[in-house]
Amino acid sequence: MGDVAILGAGAGGCAAAAVLARHGLEVTLFSRAPERLEAIRDRGGLEITGDRGDGFVPIAHLTSDIADAGRAAFLLIFTVANAHAALSHLLAPRVRVDHVVLLASGSAGSLEVARIWREGGLTRMPLLGETATLPQSARMIGPAQVKIRFPWTVRTAAFPARNSPELVERLGDFGALLRTLQAKNVLDTGLNNPNFIIHPAPMVLNYAAIERADGALSLMNEGMTEAVLRAMDAHDRERMALQAAAGLMPISLDDLYREFGSSPAIYRSPGEPMGLRDCIHFRYIDEDIPYGSVFMSSLGRLLGVPTPINDALNTLASIARGVDYWASGRTVERLGIAGLRGAALQRYLETGER
Amino acid sequence: MGDVAILGAGAGGCAAAAVLARHGLEVTLFSRAPERLEAIRDRGGLEITGDRGDGFVPIAHLTSDIADAGRAAFLLIFTVANAHAALSHLLAPRVRVDHVVLLASGSAGSLEVARIWREGGLTRMPLLGETATLPQSARMIGPAQVKIRFPWTVRTAAFPARNSPELVERLGDFGALLRTLQAKNVLDTGLNNPNFIIHPAPMVLNYAAIERADGALSLMNEGMTEAVLRAMDAHDRERMALQAAAGLMPISLDDLYREFGSSPAIYRSPGEPMGLRDCIHFRYIDEDIPYGSVFMSSLGRLLGVPTPINDALNTLASIARGVDYWASGRTVERLGIAGLRGAALQRYLETGER
Repeated sequence: MGDVAILGAGAGGCAAAAVLARHGLEVTLFSRAPERLEAIRDRGGLEITGDRGDGFVPIAHLTSDIADAGRAAFLLIFTVANAHAALSHLLAPRVRVDHVVLLASGSAGSLEVARIWREGGLTRMPLLGETATLPQSARMIGPAQVKIRFPWTVRTAAFPARNSPELVERLGDFGALLRTLQAKNVLDTGLNNPNFIIHPAPMVLNYAAIERADGALSLMNEGMTEAVLRAMDAHDRERMALQAAAGLMPISLDDLYREFGSSPAIYRSPGEPMGLRDCIHFRYIDEDIPYGSVFMSSLGRLLGVPTPINDALNTLASIARGVDYWASGRTVERLGIAGLRGAALQRYLETGER
Repeated sequence: MGDVAILGAGAGGCAAAAVLARHGLEVTLFSRAPERLEAIRDRGGLEITGDRGDGFVPIAHLTSDIADAGRAAFLLIFTVANAHAALSHLLAPRVRVDHVVLLASGSAGSLEVARIWREGGLTRMPLLGETATLPQSARMIGPAQVKIRFPWTVRTAAFPARNSPELVERLGDFGALLRTLQAKNVLDTGLNNPNFIIHPAPMVLNYAAIERADGALSLMNEGMTEAVLRAMDAHDRERMALQAAAGLMPISLDDLYREFGSSPAIYRSPGEPMGLRDCIHFRYIDEDIPYGSVFMSSLGRLLGVPTPINDALNTLASIARGVDYWASGRTVERLGIAGLRGAALQRYLETGER
């Protein structure tokens, strides 16, 4: 197999880079922000700790030049969903038909990436797809030090979905990083990111407390009160109704956690999954409202499914945070599926053709 | 002037009973729950403290018999809005055309009371009206002991509004209790209850923290974070848009506080207005969501004004609290104004005729 570029040098990207480099792959770690790479460059690689073992892993190439990253055979995008569109534009001139491009996690972003590339004139698409969530939990515990927890089994799909078997097969070589489970399509992966449920309602109902604590509130330890769990469960039922309307098999958040090898206890019982007191500072809603709840509200409009809870979370999070997530978030228009319903939507997801 | 019955023996009712009894009126204090009157009966009256002076005030009559209360010339209803409908049914057989019935505060409930009485066959209506809010802040600080803060200047209107001058004049005798300011109609009073803004958004964004504190969180001291004030202000702008669409002069919450003799500092600066650490236990949303936010959402549908913030608060408060406020709250149907728009609505508010 060819070499691999990891795009995004946050905790998820650093963890992926370290795991794959340790596995013997030639890894290029890309970040648009050179300063994010400085400490890793100074150290010559990454310290890892946690479930994937402890130790030092040299990273061959660090770069902020998208052309460098584009030379790799595999482009694994580990940025937050907020960066998908910008990265698509950066990558557009460099994407080749023999590339494998994976959004991890995707949030149905494959549809947006494909739309941007198509509208940019790209006619021969790479093998493109996404996972439902990060293949492992990770936190930076130092500038070049990352704590890693579990390799999860994550739903994975290609766009178009007829390419999913090939995508899953080619990702098989990344077994050290990723245990894939083939999903029906990229709405299936998009609707099965657990963060879209465990973050928005808990964040909104804890909003003022998080402000008072200047972010130092552990959502999983302190935030999951009875009412919060009730709100989360209602939010989850709304997500399942969307899955059913999208022709998918609904799966509850609890079963989703079981599926990827964890347990609902991770949020239903007090306990900090990463063993860290997590400084939240609203990053849990900066991604999960616009790319989770706004996406679900927009999909609900398309599919005729009421989404009062997603709507409520979008509205209150936007006002509280002072950011119009309704305007910046992921909509069916941005995904290029506005107006597509029923068989036409299914055909597009499966074949990429309208 | 005749004697007066105070209906409702919570803090507001007890404060009103004590103030008026001290002023020399013959007061009957009514509560549907006999146990609420026990301590007052044992003591022979109420201890008061606060801005209206300190001392003991005998209360002439205590009763749980609505017929007793109905004998008074003035019926002043000091219950939460949740009890308006039930009280209307209780009072229906006893209401006389020479009664003066005042809801304090009203929350546009005069419309619901009139509808219930009309549908019950009452043809000659009493002089009926409401205030926008309680004429004074009050807290029970013992079973027969009430702390009173300020007499406010409160918007007051009759339904129909053509009776407002007469209502305001007749209430003039209650100057010790009430400083009235004639409002345009009972939508004006209904939309100018400050509790409808200072409670819902702050409660929802502090919800989990209140749960964790078992209610012992002072909303005014701790709850008013930057984001909470931002949400409250946005909620207030939605309220003002409703006022404009209802043909009223919009007034901001801050100006409303100034109008009734207080200051926005009461919620914009940390400080507990009653000098008490307030045990909230969700009573701030049990009334203010169904009779404030649901009312505003429903009125918005009638008037064609979007109410995303009220909608969001109704949805999240209902889920968090496990109560369907959308179903139990005050709607234009319950107020008897469904389908009434523009001139027809104004005429009904002014004359009571369709």
